[in-house]
Amino acid sequence: MYYDVIIIGAGPAGLSAGIYSARGGLKTAVFEKAIVGGQITVADEIENYPGFEEALSGFELTQKMHDQAERFGVEFIDEEIIAMGVDGLCKIVETDSGKYRAKSVILCTGAYPRKLNVPGEERFTGRGVSYCATCDGALYRDKIVAVVGGGDSAIEEALFLTRFAKKVYVIHRRDELRAQKIIQERAFANPKMEIIWDSVVQQIKGENRVESLELVNRKTNEVSDLEVDGVFIYVGILPNNKLFESRIELDSGGFVITDEHMHTTIPGVYAAGDIRTKVLRQVVTATSDGAIAAWSAEKWIIENHDALEVERAK
Amino acid sequence: MYYDVIIIGAGPAGLSAGIYSARGGLKTAVFEKAIVGGQITVADEIENYPGFEEALSGFELTQKMHDQAERFGVEFIDEEIIAMGVDGLCKIVETDSGKYRAKSVILCTGAYPRKLNVPGEERFTGRGVSYCATCDGALYRDKIVAVVGGGDSAIEEALFLTRFAKKVYVIHRRDELRAQKIIQERAFANPKMEIIWDSVVQQIKGENRVESLELVNRKTNEVSDLEVDGVFIYVGILPNNKLFESRIELDSGGFVITDEHMHTTIPGVYAAGDIRTKVLRQVVTATSDGAIAAWSAEKWIIENHDALEVERAK
Repeated sequence: MYYDVIIIGAGPAGLSAGIYSARGGLKTAVFEKAIVGGQITVADEIENYPGFEEALSGFELTQKMHDQAERFGVEFIDEEIIAMGVDGLCKIVETDSGKYRAKSVILCTGAYPRKLNVPGEERFTGRGVSYCATCDGALYRDKIVAVVGGGDSAIEEALFLTRFAKKVYVIHRRDELRAQKIIQERAFANPKMEIIWDSVVQQIKGENRVESLELVNRKTNEVSDLEVDGVFIYVGILPNNKLFESRIELDSGGFVITDEHMHTTIPGVYAAGDIRTKVLRQVVTATSDGAIAAWSAEKWIIENHDALEVERAK
Repeated sequence: MYYDVIIIGAGPAGLSAGIYSARGGLKTAVFEKAIVGGQITVADEIENYPGFEEALSGFELTQKMHDQAERFGVEFIDEEIIAMGVDGLCKIVETDSGKYRAKSVILCTGAYPRKLNVPGEERFTGRGVSYCATCDGALYRDKIVAVVGGGDSAIEEALFLTRFAKKVYVIHRRDELRAQKIIQERAFANPKMEIIWDSVVQQIKGENRVESLELVNRKTNEVSDLEVDGVFIYVGILPNNKLFESRIELDSGGFVITDEHMHTTIPGVYAAGDIRTKVLRQVVTATSDGAIAAWSAEKWIIENHDALEVERAK
């Protein structure tokens, strides 16, 4: 099969790219090996995606985007891409069922937060375990929360959480923070913040939602329980880049580097959403990326029309 | 009055910045002299903002964003800002009713398409007169349209429209295009495109919606009627920058230059949406800008907390 645009991944970035590409008159396929919606489908409640005055679940929101994309003629292909290559200007993706060709590819494979991999973490995700303070912080007004991590984002998000929570613990495995000096100073000065040094979470406990964390001190091996209403885990974010990591320029974290047109280092290949090096990973920034990537792909296809047609005829 | 964040303009960028800022626990005011919603309120139908499987009007969509912002505690102030200044780190905006201070300001004043200023243009806006092919192109399947202009965007959008329309006229006042060579070549090669040289539109005519354009040839002075179903006007876009043009770095078109955090050249002052130098002006890119600007402002306020408090106490 030959498409104008193949989009890899059906989270908000991929769905938005699909909406813009198909509505722009391009023959568009979206590949998704798992469920439509991506990471955000685990979110119970999204209340900051502009346009929805009432909160809705990640599943509901992405389902709407899916239906919108389908309405414009996006073809959804439920196959896992196992290889991706380039032949001249043409892009080829391969699944167990065969090969698909396209003029342009938009990578929307997303990223996922590094897990602690401790008992209770998966079970309580969305019920007290969160990986995004910007998303869920406002749900913890006057509650007690913990942040796990010691880097810039962990401490920034902990400071952010002090706006809502009455107490914010930071649980850090070392005896000093990696965060920037100025952010550390603000953390130490904030009366709501308390840093628990040299400690790791070894279990997340509760009945229906998070009630406490079982901590172990790495120096003393002392085990203790910390009562919290929620825990925000900030120990890194990992890109889904396996398919193309050897061929596209990535940053040191493995995220795809693009220009502001979402163009990668391969002509006609774009990246959008969480897989990209960017400042803020939110549904609204992902959908924006997707729209820009599709618009850019469309311009690129117009500009390379003749060469693409010659190749296709071969 | 003293705010954490003052947002100037209540289009999609300003409303999204408001949602993120207020939900982030910051005391936030949005100033809008005219109607909430900005430029996009003139759009009859928006069908590409991700999340709405059914088209809705620009007014409806921005009303939803307004209600969402209000729910999180954004204060809407219906006053025209007549001056804006900086006192140390503190920002001051002035209206006829008084002065308002803030730690951070987000400029969301928008932009507007340059008009032809001919009879019928205003009357038929949204009824055959459009300033955005990406927005409205899909509504002209198998129709006849005209594009007015000769620059890159005019010709790119004309090429884009050939995906839908059966005929695309380009009406250009000169005898050569300003668009890039490669785009010109594609335009000349496209059988659906026809360029009408040396001509300007002097009237847009119709009963309930656009039916024809009255053209005049600038060399021969000959007047003619061109039957069209729609006309896309691409003669430039003008930023609403009067309030700050002398103090913030602008590009040659008068748009605010920001980094990817939406930061302008003034510490704590951000810009979001159409007022900014950017590649694609759409509702979804505006809301994304607004979210990033608010998030950045929040980080900036945390980092400058002590200095801001000292100044405020003075």
